[in-house]
Amino acid sequence: MTESTSDLAELEARLQITFHDRRLLERALTHHSCCPETAIRDSYDTLEFLGDAIISAHVVEYIYRNFPEASEGEMTSLKSEVVSRRVLSRIGRQLGLFDFVRVDTASLRTFNERSRDSLCTDVLEALVGAIHIDQGPEVAREFVARWIFPVVNEVHRQLFNSNPKGRLQNILLHRSGCLPRYRVLEEGGSRSDRTFTVGVFEHDLLLGVGTASSIKEAGRLAALDALRSLQPEGSPEISS
Amino acid sequence: MTESTSDLAELEARLQITFHDRRLLERALTHHSCCPETAIRDSYDTLEFLGDAIISAHVVEYIYRNFPEASEGEMTSLKSEVVSRRVLSRIGRQLGLFDFVRVDTASLRTFNERSRDSLCTDVLEALVGAIHIDQGPEVAREFVARWIFPVVNEVHRQLFNSNPKGRLQNILLHRSGCLPRYRVLEEGGSRSDRTFTVGVFEHDLLLGVGTASSIKEAGRLAALDALRSLQPEGSPEISS
Repeated sequence: MTESTSDLAELEARLQITFHDRRLLERALTHHSCCPETAIRDSYDTLEFLGDAIISAHVVEYIYRNFPEASEGEMTSLKSEVVSRRVLSRIGRQLGLFDFVRVDTASLRTFNERSRDSLCTDVLEALVGAIHIDQGPEVAREFVARWIFPVVNEVHRQLFNSNPKGRLQNILLHRSGCLPRYRVLEEGGSRSDRTFTVGVFEHDLLLGVGTASSIKEAGRLAALDALRSLQPEGSPEISS
Repeated sequence: MTESTSDLAELEARLQITFHDRRLLERALTHHSCCPETAIRDSYDTLEFLGDAIISAHVVEYIYRNFPEASEGEMTSLKSEVVSRRVLSRIGRQLGLFDFVRVDTASLRTFNERSRDSLCTDVLEALVGAIHIDQGPEVAREFVARWIFPVVNEVHRQLFNSNPKGRLQNILLHRSGCLPRYRVLEEGGSRSDRTFTVGVFEHDLLLGVGTASSIKEAGRLAALDALRSLQPEGSPEISS
């Protein structure tokens, strides 16, 4: 119990937050495998649900304010990438959250690096939920600003500042010696409300799709989609 | 121009909000069909993206605070229903938003009741985004509280207070004379981390699925899922 208390103090120091109600902090760290009978009250599941929505709202507002030239489609891609397990688990690992997670690994069917990443993501989200409830919305926003906003800029650079079609071409030439092929898969709308869905292929293999109001932009989004799917899970950055 | 200005004043009266920057209000009402060349700056698309995330965060927080006995799965079902087009378009129609929408219907491929619902949903979301930016987070929260929170309680009553399996049975007996059949489709996890996916069938037709840590709860969620899919689009309430 003493050890557990000092653990919590150490985590609070890392988070730069002192909880009014430490039970909320404990709950944010507790996987339901530790409390199968009382999971609704004692596990992080519902705090994670709350934190996920709060992180999304802050990230979306940050994107809206800082990337006014982006289309709704680009904002959606950027947000999806930022709140993905790949990115959030990296932040959770930077915070060293795994050391504080309470999980009964013996009762889990499998436990591997992927599970570690999932736990770090879940607990990061649950912590934001707990901070929001315990400390109020402003402190939660500051926490998200400190830990997650810097990544938005980084992901934006990776996704948009460099040329995704060029990057995809380099990767494909390197791995199979062939050029990516772009094809319009679907065309919808009329005059001023037209949409195009473009697919990008390596030989006959569909690597990614994108939909936008111009073929050019749909192709760019398809290349981004392909880059995301070529990116191995758990690797920290999109290869440049 | 005079008419347009008085329109905006009338809408502000309905919303009980006076915008500092009326251009933001105008933008929240403008479908990209009216400004195909300058949609990123002049249409509601990115405000809608912002408002959607803000509504979700407030609704999720409201659910978290007011339904502490709900599981994460129940919270997710409740939130999904509240922020669905069916529910949000009803609120948008109550606010009479369609009269204020700027859309070039002639340029749209199809324009029907569904499009009206979509526009009302989009504009309601965009308005929340615009209020958040123009008036600050507290006013946006109050707006969501006034217009959307009451629906959370109503949807919760419809979804959970009555017995979804019983309601589904009544509907199926009435329409085909047969009883719903529940079947475990998948079983995963181990000991304390078990999950069950249950499907509910009308003869051989899969009507809905649900996943939870007990077969009973998974069956309840499957019945809810079936009730949702049996509910015709645009009908204002789940039949009781």
